[in-house]
Amino acid sequence: MKTTPQSIRWDNGTLELLDQRQLPTSEIYLTIKDPESAAEAIKNLTVRGAPAIGITAAFGMVLAAIRKDDLYLAGAILKKSRPTAINLSWAVDEMLVIVNQKPSDLVESLEKRAVGIYLGEISMCKNIGKHGAALIQPDSGVLTHCNAGGLAVTEIGTATAPLYHAHSKGVSFRVFAKETRPVLQGARLTAWELNAAGIDVTVICDSADAHLMALGHIDIAIVGADRVTANGDIVNKIGTRSLAIACAYHGIPFYVAFPSSTYDPQTAQGLDVKIEERPSSEVTTSLPFPIDVPVRNPAFDVTPNELVTGYLTEHGLFESIDEAVK
Amino acid sequence: MKTTPQSIRWDNGTLELLDQRQLPTSEIYLTIKDPESAAEAIKNLTVRGAPAIGITAAFGMVLAAIRKDDLYLAGAILKKSRPTAINLSWAVDEMLVIVNQKPSDLVESLEKRAVGIYLGEISMCKNIGKHGAALIQPDSGVLTHCNAGGLAVTEIGTATAPLYHAHSKGVSFRVFAKETRPVLQGARLTAWELNAAGIDVTVICDSADAHLMALGHIDIAIVGADRVTANGDIVNKIGTRSLAIACAYHGIPFYVAFPSSTYDPQTAQGLDVKIEERPSSEVTTSLPFPIDVPVRNPAFDVTPNELVTGYLTEHGLFESIDEAVK
Repeated sequence: MKTTPQSIRWDNGTLELLDQRQLPTSEIYLTIKDPESAAEAIKNLTVRGAPAIGITAAFGMVLAAIRKDDLYLAGAILKKSRPTAINLSWAVDEMLVIVNQKPSDLVESLEKRAVGIYLGEISMCKNIGKHGAALIQPDSGVLTHCNAGGLAVTEIGTATAPLYHAHSKGVSFRVFAKETRPVLQGARLTAWELNAAGIDVTVICDSADAHLMALGHIDIAIVGADRVTANGDIVNKIGTRSLAIACAYHGIPFYVAFPSSTYDPQTAQGLDVKIEERPSSEVTTSLPFPIDVPVRNPAFDVTPNELVTGYLTEHGLFESIDEAVK
Repeated sequence: MKTTPQSIRWDNGTLELLDQRQLPTSEIYLTIKDPESAAEAIKNLTVRGAPAIGITAAFGMVLAAIRKDDLYLAGAILKKSRPTAINLSWAVDEMLVIVNQKPSDLVESLEKRAVGIYLGEISMCKNIGKHGAALIQPDSGVLTHCNAGGLAVTEIGTATAPLYHAHSKGVSFRVFAKETRPVLQGARLTAWELNAAGIDVTVICDSADAHLMALGHIDIAIVGADRVTANGDIVNKIGTRSLAIACAYHGIPFYVAFPSSTYDPQTAQGLDVKIEERPSSEVTTSLPFPIDVPVRNPAFDVTPNELVTGYLTEHGLFESIDEAVK
């Protein structure tokens, strides 16, 4: 199965991140030498996607251990680099479990755990792909938003895992990728990686989704998640909520795909999650915007559980969050 | 009342159009000398907005008469410059009524009718503003999409007419302008003209609308229309349909403002209207899009009448299209 370039490389103490801000124009890897640089790379979107930033934070903790930094401080710095995706704090906490065990070979133990998180995400994505492949019917139209692909995770991604899986089995289908303003992860990343894999993909502006639904071009929608709360609400890229509402209006099933590292049983509902507001420059840069007009740039939104047709995890496809996580 | 620069100027046989493609960076008027150039200016978005392209076409017919062109041919060229807005063919047909009357002073008669259309739109917008002003409550949040402002029409616009009117009465409110990809008429034009008039306006990405609704920031949505069909369906800028669906989901009233020149009793329903597909370059230009990925760029969509809370015309505010046009 053709896959995208690795978003994260770890080789014997060296962390390299594919600079996703420069895709698809340039394919450049940045070498990350310390946890502060890892945190900055997460913050400035060099690396993005909930599982990928979790993996990056885990390796950031290994870099901190190599430098003999205070690991609790390093963990705190990494955790606060972005507030919304739960994988980030989950991965740091997993590393701190090792720290608390005070192993004699601390660096080696942390590296082993970080690699374990990395391989675990790859394995979970493969299983998401298998369990979700049946959703992708021959000659169907699939709508996705943002990038929950290989670049957001590793190899085949989460929301895209069923697509890669179905494609590898010879199923013919068409994907519509919402461009996903302001940073265009759908156009720059999802369309790019699916196209490179030979999957039929067409880019649309974000607000064209309901029109394509009305025309009958969309059979299912599938997205990833940055956090799934205890009640099954989905916190994901801004625009997911309106997409899910449009699906409900048109009677189109709406699926969310995520590894269990994205589930947050500690948070009751989506409204309790802090939604990151990012700089207005993300919206205004390189476009002819008027000077001095305020911009609001929320990076995520909440999709209530009532709009979710199915939860797709490494364990299967489930109608309710309770079944998905039991 | 402060208003925006005139989108269309007519002075003794000279037609000048404000080049809206260059706003807000540059304020440049292009001189239009013949109907072919008028048609091209409509096609390439130098002038846009349903009433404004109708007015431009009317003056294009006057230019054709001055040149002693075949006026039926000129009318056909102008009509086919853009397919969706009904005002365009309405204005050309109004001019052909004069042509068919074979007046001895043809140019003068046509000019008089074109100026009449122009002044008629201004007058209709003023009345829309009066009838709609009560919709804009103190401290409310108003969401709008694309530009149905002074630039799309003349002076105070259609969807923006109640905003300008309420502002002139000292009502304090906040507008959220959807940026309106791909050509950003919301960010470039609506935000610019409202900001210039001293109205509190904030730009959001198109897909952030449902999130702001969930946060309680939006009390009403108001948009313009390119065509209103016999059954009250709304054909308007791509994204209007998803906006109206999100309003319905959140229980937020959704209003459409239009002069009666936008009503098309000959077309039964929105689905019967040809939706213009524009070049993909509008989406990909100046953004880092991957090469060779197909793009679909529908310029309009259809909002079914069931999602419209009220129709605001120069005659008043009505719950049904039948009341609005009787």
